[in-house]
Amino acid sequence: MNPQINLLCDAAWAAFPVFQSKTNAERAAFLDEIASQIEKLGDELLETASAETNLPLPRLTGERARTCGQFRMFANLIRTEGWNAETIDPADPTRTPPKPHLRRYLVPVGPVAVFGASNFPLAYSVPGGDTASALAAGCPVVVKAHPAHPKTSELCCAAITRAVEACEMPSGTFALVHGGFEEGQDLVQHPHIRAVGFTGSHSGGRALFGLASRRERPIPVYAEMGSVNPVFLFPGALEGRAAELAKGYAASLTLGVGQFCTNPGIVVALDSTDLDQFLLSLVAELDTVPAGNMLHKGIADRYVQDTAEFAAHAHLETLLAPSAAGSPALFGTTAANFLANPDIRQEVFGPAAVIVKCESLQDFEAVADVLEGQLTASIHFDKNEEAKALSLLPTLTRIAGRIVANGWPTGVEVSPAMTHGGPYPASTDTRTTSVGTHAIDRFLRPVTLQGMES
Amino acid sequence: MNPQINLLCDAAWAAFPVFQSKTNAERAAFLDEIASQIEKLGDELLETASAETNLPLPRLTGERARTCGQFRMFANLIRTEGWNAETIDPADPTRTPPKPHLRRYLVPVGPVAVFGASNFPLAYSVPGGDTASALAAGCPVVVKAHPAHPKTSELCCAAITRAVEACEMPSGTFALVHGGFEEGQDLVQHPHIRAVGFTGSHSGGRALFGLASRRERPIPVYAEMGSVNPVFLFPGALEGRAAELAKGYAASLTLGVGQFCTNPGIVVALDSTDLDQFLLSLVAELDTVPAGNMLHKGIADRYVQDTAEFAAHAHLETLLAPSAAGSPALFGTTAANFLANPDIRQEVFGPAAVIVKCESLQDFEAVADVLEGQLTASIHFDKNEEAKALSLLPTLTRIAGRIVANGWPTGVEVSPAMTHGGPYPASTDTRTTSVGTHAIDRFLRPVTLQGMES
Repeated sequence: MNPQINLLCDAAWAAFPVFQSKTNAERAAFLDEIASQIEKLGDELLETASAETNLPLPRLTGERARTCGQFRMFANLIRTEGWNAETIDPADPTRTPPKPHLRRYLVPVGPVAVFGASNFPLAYSVPGGDTASALAAGCPVVVKAHPAHPKTSELCCAAITRAVEACEMPSGTFALVHGGFEEGQDLVQHPHIRAVGFTGSHSGGRALFGLASRRERPIPVYAEMGSVNPVFLFPGALEGRAAELAKGYAASLTLGVGQFCTNPGIVVALDSTDLDQFLLSLVAELDTVPAGNMLHKGIADRYVQDTAEFAAHAHLETLLAPSAAGSPALFGTTAANFLANPDIRQEVFGPAAVIVKCESLQDFEAVADVLEGQLTASIHFDKNEEAKALSLLPTLTRIAGRIVANGWPTGVEVSPAMTHGGPYPASTDTRTTSVGTHAIDRFLRPVTLQGMES
Repeated sequence: MNPQINLLCDAAWAAFPVFQSKTNAERAAFLDEIASQIEKLGDELLETASAETNLPLPRLTGERARTCGQFRMFANLIRTEGWNAETIDPADPTRTPPKPHLRRYLVPVGPVAVFGASNFPLAYSVPGGDTASALAAGCPVVVKAHPAHPKTSELCCAAITRAVEACEMPSGTFALVHGGFEEGQDLVQHPHIRAVGFTGSHSGGRALFGLASRRERPIPVYAEMGSVNPVFLFPGALEGRAAELAKGYAASLTLGVGQFCTNPGIVVALDSTDLDQFLLSLVAELDTVPAGNMLHKGIADRYVQDTAEFAAHAHLETLLAPSAAGSPALFGTTAANFLANPDIRQEVFGPAAVIVKCESLQDFEAVADVLEGQLTASIHFDKNEEAKALSLLPTLTRIAGRIVANGWPTGVEVSPAMTHGGPYPASTDTRTTSVGTHAIDRFLRPVTLQGMES
């Protein structure tokens, strides 16, 4: 066990009862102060993040607003009466046996370990949704910084630490550690850590999940690991709107160089002249998109390797070869081949897509059914084929956390009705969301007080 | 893989979309019909259960009422608007970018495997709370019968099957399998099983949890594994009420031959003449309790062995030696010894208790803090020491799922504010309850529909 990690987890445990005992108003003020402190970092934060991640300043400006908005959303949530699901069953002394008074409410689970993602250096990293929701719940947080943006992480840690001091929270309320997989292992295995939030690769998330389940006292791991996010184009939508859909799809596929976990990597459509028209427009659109700088060399190298493997695959036709790392790639296959070859259903992280050409709408159902758990699934349809399109919903809700109608999956609203999660392997815990107010549920557990009416 | 289990899980999977698509009213009528069919089994059910478990008929009559009550409670729950937590964020087309319409609601996770307990052949077995809550959620259920009451299990299975037929539910909606650990393993590892409910021993629950976490697609295991349920007697309560408390405690400790998971196996009190008085009365009370027949030979043998080990323990004094399997046993120790010896903090399944004599109220806090996760913790206090007693609440809520004030933990209300669960090792999932309406949450997951306003 890394001695620094041991110290920080012990400090988080010592802080827990004090932090938990703060009023909702005090904790809300603390969350608001974190947002203000992040804003006070000014251009230095944006420039540091841009230098470390290749993400452009306008994107990071938006991400900072989202990040601060999340803290303020959770501050408002815990200021709202009833946020902790208090339920009261009144006593009934006339019953035999007498019914006791019961009060149920939610309490924080304890210190939380957070693993930031590389693709959102703010909103899913040190000051991201996992940190904001855990602190809102009353759980101290120890973040493992993503090695791809250490300076950005330090700046954010300094801002949060200033808020801890300004609001007189115990010093163990928040901590940041750097390191690799070994440090991550130590953190997840520390006996004082009671839950884990993770955004990143399948291999990383699954490894942490395994470690956490094998602990003497197992703890939950909320790993959000991405997916291929299928898009189903019904014939009525393609008829007459092929060019418009191609434009929309190209924009969603290449947004942020395709480095979103909701990136739509699979398109399912009937083999038709409308689809041909869609593909012609799509290739033309994608041709105008310059190769973007990917987040770091590891991701760029992996993209080149994955797209090369797809290009060489016996059951994939290359419709658009990537000119460089970060440039769009397009492959085609048939439904039959898609069903028979699990390897072409895997996520390629970046702006790459597989077009699945179907013989009939029955193929849509079969393709949906064979897919693993997804964060999202999208359907595009015309008004007059709505019933047909919605008949796919039972299957889609079985495989995905969010179903988008006549829209694109990139752009995740931060709001009470959002689900950002889904069946495994989209996440390790299908009962939760990592975005929106319900993200706080991950770090709470119920307690019942019996016979305490006051 | 056992071929019969494979067949039944495939049938449950085939039934899932059909069962899920039934209306709330149809599923509620099905749950009500199960309750009626169990009642129609009449005395045959009670006599069979009594013969298999040694439990007396009045107890089983009460347990049957509880069992049928649970089905009707969940029927009423899913008839209630909003039970599936529907949340709507309306669209805002004036925002930049336009805000989409979002609708979040809960859907069933898929087929559920249920492992019945030996100590409640009805209420926590084939027709128990796990089965009722999973069916209410819309999940088909495959139960592994507890080998200690196979005939009772078959009768209940026949009743549920008649309800499946009467309500025209798909035939894979419910199934029962017999067998041992190997069959249990097969069931938990079947790819079509999506969650597990379990009530029983720590070794069994932990083993199933491990199997479920190592699956290609991990699934949640809700194992409720019991605990020692500490009782803290504050000095004001003992003063003048020692005899009354001894009577109440003796009744709770020996209820059902101590074979409840909420059985209060640890008493914490100040070393005092009031405690001496309490112990005198307690021994006198327990002396009048005849040795009860335990559930089966394995449990009786284990009780004899565990109490013999306690009697031989260097740091335990025997205050009342058990005269036979199922007869009460009482041991004493000091807070210092309790803190230093983890082995005397372990659960003895049956009517055995350890009295922890403390030097000061600080010892109460230390004793509470060293305990592992508990289903319950109880505090008895006088009105004038309420503040002192309630200052223990932060520690108690950290270790237990339910805190009982001036009452005993046995007797678990089936109601919306109940928490029957707690931190590990009381359960493998501290965020849930296995009793009360919230038990349904274990078998639901959120889904968000975006852009579907109708």
